[in-house]
Amino acid sequence: MIAEDYGRLIVQGADRPGIVSSVSTVLAEHGANIVALDQSSSDPSGGRFFQRTVFHLPGLSGRLAELDEVLGQRLTEDLGLTYRLVEAKRHKRVAVLVSKADHCLLDLLWRQRRGELHMSIPMVISNHPDLGDDVRQFGIPFFHVPVEKDHKAAAEKEHLNLLKGNVDLVVLARYMQIVSGEFLDEVGVPVINIHHSFLPAFMGAGPYQRAKERGVKLVGATAHYVTEDLDEGPIIEQDVIRVSHRESAAELQRKGADVERLVLSRAVAWHCDDRVIRDGNTTVVF
Amino acid sequence: MIAEDYGRLIVQGADRPGIVSSVSTVLAEHGANIVALDQSSSDPSGGRFFQRTVFHLPGLSGRLAELDEVLGQRLTEDLGLTYRLVEAKRHKRVAVLVSKADHCLLDLLWRQRRGELHMSIPMVISNHPDLGDDVRQFGIPFFHVPVEKDHKAAAEKEHLNLLKGNVDLVVLARYMQIVSGEFLDEVGVPVINIHHSFLPAFMGAGPYQRAKERGVKLVGATAHYVTEDLDEGPIIEQDVIRVSHRESAAELQRKGADVERLVLSRAVAWHCDDRVIRDGNTTVVF
Amino acid sequence: MIAEDYGRLIVQGADRPGIVSSVSTVLAEHGANIVALDQSSSDPSGGRFFQRTVFHLPGLSGRLAELDEVLGQRLTEDLGLTYRLVEAKRHKRVAVLVSKADHCLLDLLWRQRRGELHMSIPMVISNHPDLGDDVRQFGIPFFHVPVEKDHKAAAEKEHLNLLKGNVDLVVLARYMQIVSGEFLDEVGVPVINIHHSFLPAFMGAGPYQRAKERGVKLVGATAHYVTEDLDEGPIIEQDVIRVSHRESAAELQRKGADVERLVLSRAVAWHCDDRVIRDGNTTVVF
Amino acid sequence: MIAEDYGRLIVQGADRPGIVSSVSTVLAEHGANIVALDQSSSDPSGGRFFQRTVFHLPGLSGRLAELDEVLGQRLTEDLGLTYRLVEAKRHKRVAVLVSKADHCLLDLLWRQRRGELHMSIPMVISNHPDLGDDVRQFGIPFFHVPVEKDHKAAAEKEHLNLLKGNVDLVVLARYMQIVSGEFLDEVGVPVINIHHSFLPAFMGAGPYQRAKERGVKLVGATAHYVTEDLDEGPIIEQDVIRVSHRESAAELQRKGADVERLVLSRAVAWHCDDRVIRDGNTTVVF
Repeated sequence: MIAEDYGRLIVQGADRPGIVSSVSTVLAEHGANIVALDQSSSDPSGGRFFQRTVFHLPGLSGRLAELDEVLGQRLTEDLGLTYRLVEAKRHKRVAVLVSKADHCLLDLLWRQRRGELHMSIPMVISNHPDLGDDVRQFGIPFFHVPVEKDHKAAAEKEHLNLLKGNVDLVVLARYMQIVSGEFLDEVGVPVINIHHSFLPAFMGAGPYQRAKERGVKLVGATAHYVTEDLDEGPIIEQDVIRVSHRESAAELQRKGADVERLVLSRAVAWHCDDRVIRDGNTTVVF
Repeated sequence: MIAEDYGRLIVQGADRPGIVSSVSTVLAEHGANIVALDQSSSDPSGGRFFQRTVFHLPGLSGRLAELDEVLGQRLTEDLGLTYRLVEAKRHKRVAVLVSKADHCLLDLLWRQRRGELHMSIPMVISNHPDLGDDVRQFGIPFFHVPVEKDHKAAAEKEHLNLLKGNVDLVVLARYMQIVSGEFLDEVGVPVINIHHSFLPAFMGAGPYQRAKERGVKLVGATAHYVTEDLDEGPIIEQDVIRVSHRESAAELQRKGADVERLVLSRAVAWHCDDRVIRDGNTTVVF
Repeated sequence: MIAEDYGRLIVQGADRPGIVSSVSTVLAEHGANIVALDQSSSDPSGGRFFQRTVFHLPGLSGRLAELDEVLGQRLTEDLGLTYRLVEAKRHKRVAVLVSKADHCLLDLLWRQRRGELHMSIPMVISNHPDLGDDVRQFGIPFFHVPVEKDHKAAAEKEHLNLLKGNVDLVVLARYMQIVSGEFLDEVGVPVINIHHSFLPAFMGAGPYQRAKERGVKLVGATAHYVTEDLDEGPIIEQDVIRVSHRESAAELQRKGADVERLVLSRAVAWHCDDRVIRDGNTTVVF
Repeated sequence: MIAEDYGRLIVQGADRPGIVSSVSTVLAEHGANIVALDQSSSDPSGGRFFQRTVFHLPGLSGRLAELDEVLGQRLTEDLGLTYRLVEAKRHKRVAVLVSKADHCLLDLLWRQRRGELHMSIPMVISNHPDLGDDVRQFGIPFFHVPVEKDHKAAAEKEHLNLLKGNVDLVVLARYMQIVSGEFLDEVGVPVINIHHSFLPAFMGAGPYQRAKERGVKLVGATAHYVTEDLDEGPIIEQDVIRVSHRESAAELQRKGADVERLVLSRAVAWHCDDRVIRDGNTTVVF
């Protein structure tokens, strides 16, 4: 599906009759063939409208500007909608931030190498040097940016120097530091985090230990966009695994790691394929 | 979602550019608002096209004939597609055939009573009298049609007398008799069966006993449209449940019953909402 | 497995070497054959010990008193352990408390009628009359005990009159009233509740609405023993089902109902088979 | 749990009263503390008996011979049972055979490096050179043994030279060659294979393509001990993942790869912890 001449059009806004028709007519007028279309309304009357369309249009690269202009007229000016027009062959550039845990990072690097994720990884940044060798064996630059307790702002500034203009997405792959609201404002691209619990259960630190103490029978993981409110951003994906009284907190952590890497990889894959649309503090995932 | 003025339009045929646009434009011209749209192509070039559209159109009942005529022109004559136009408020009439096992039947009756299934149940037919009281307590007619070993054709004739013209779907809810090709031809409506294994594993009789002997770690169930080839029809839905060496074949059967009733109820619900489209010997489920 | 001459022995206490040997030796001395044994320690040193043993002993009923006396000597006096000795054929007597929702109640009644649950149901009590007919069709007494807003104590007193001495377990099958600490003290038997969320997420009222607002991708249910702290008692079983942006809060509730009834039925089945042992605010489930 | 002084005792044979008592009494006499015990009988009367016991015994290494002698007397001679006595700290030596696919191999290498698998990997053998670099980066020897179409026996002889005496388990991690009955006889240790379908569905070659054609709604993977009958050996573990009409056969394969590596890693972990006991053509997994 990812090849020359495929485009994606993401449309959202206030629902009203005729949006699907307008979008598909513009595409048809330009000779594009719709190969996949997902549409959803939050409510049949007065709701919010979301649509993701994948189309094939020979010579797409050369016709993007023209198509964009018509869409701007017909969707934004006439219908008051917002849209994104994306060439599928332009892979998103993704930076990964990690600490010492390797499972989520390795899963992303490996899936990217085998072509499962439609993205490039221009850099991995860590507050610890431990994973440098692993990262560089994949041919990917690794930057060690220590985060001193009282100098977090300095570290974030260094992060911004590395990231700004160079990436389309930042992934916190078990990065054990809280990022500030200033950083989120400045970096200017979405940030995805993996939380090691089934949110909103066990927000904050030590979720496996608290899961053990509470005696839950499933542990989970949650991938979400990062906002200023820790562990409260829009959820992209979640999953769980069964546990019992037999497992210690350390064994819950080990089992949970399998869920974490799977959930994060799915969320990143979907984001890179423009399948995820934010809707307030929730997401539409097509 | 099931109320006055909602319609569903199911379109399928050879894929070509402009189908989505044609469909949505016809609907927009009539003032219909698309509230849900699913579209799929079996292949980006030369594939088969499938689309399910739910729309809201004030005064739908009175405008069906007119809409149907335009669709016939624009979709069938111009584009060579087949389509079905359905009013959501017209519930499908579903006959359930059972033998002695009650779990699938009761799940259907109960979900229908609580409004989860958009269907009516004009009759339950059984080759045993055992479940008559249960069925009639739901206010539904129960017909006992014994099936004698050498007089199956007579029984099927009686079934056809009861069913023809009266139902839109026949559901075999653990009906322990093979239905003939003649019956399928004659009855003229789709027939859904629940098979008590994860097909194509354990086709035929005694799947739980054979699952126990093979030592599988999951048992499952499969809902499929019935064709002349036993257990080989298009699959609508499947699911599984974990088992271990601890369970006997009888206990596999008990655990599997929970999967059977869930899988069958889902398949029937989706069929009644026109979510299932046959594609050769497989299905598209929107 | 449930038949004449089968017994269950549940042992718990501070772990120390030799407990398994003592238990199995006492049973062997009496000619009992162990047919299933589960054992667990919370920690290899200084932990808590749990064991569930199922054994076959010809003439068990006539030998219970004698076996009990020896166990009291060898397990309680010599090793400081507590134990329960149970005849498998003595089904637990279970009262079900409900309000208006029928899904959990009917699942219990069906399974009990089918022989899946090793229990009897001497009564169903409700604060609404709605489910009376359904219950009585199973041949089970239904008592309507209205709960007036300012006279909850009076209703609880009536509950206690009905329950005390007559039941071994109380199940709250979506009973929409909080039970008091006094009631729990007085009733003298375990009380199991089904909460319609994956605890500790969405404790309290309106979990499906809050799940919709938070945008979770799975909804769940939790069966737990009731304590004075609402929704904080020891968890017996939990499960989840996948949801998406497409479902409204009402549809989450409908999907969740399938999980609720499955989770509650499993928890009740396990309790009735003496598979659940409380360990502080958690459970060991064998 | 894996540390000095922990032992595992696996017992199996014809069931009879008193086995648990005999085993636990021998252990208690030697001062061992049972920390985990699982027991199962295939049938309460005349069945086969299985027990796995984990115990802590200070100075275990020096007392193994003595314990073994007593167990030989009390379990084998007196009760006709077979048993295995294992020190937990002695990790199993595991050879991995692969072809070109890396997903199962890398998952094993990562988990082993992380300490999740209680095993050592003295060698990886492949009929293709492709994965050599990946393997050697983990500090593990990689041997390339080409398998020529008409000289399979020569390759198997080379395999045996490498393996015999050096390993306790052989894992076929998507090794795309059939191993002969002679090889299985000669190698003298268990061989585990991962099959890329939910057996017994889609035995043999091309399971994802056939799954796509059959239109199944779940694809799976099966880890099993290898016997002379291809894809028919005792199943250790299975799992599945949901798919739909949207995925091509290639996408089923990609999704299935996640299940394959998880299922194989679980099966290998359980085998290395002596949790898997063969029972004819099935397994008991404790």
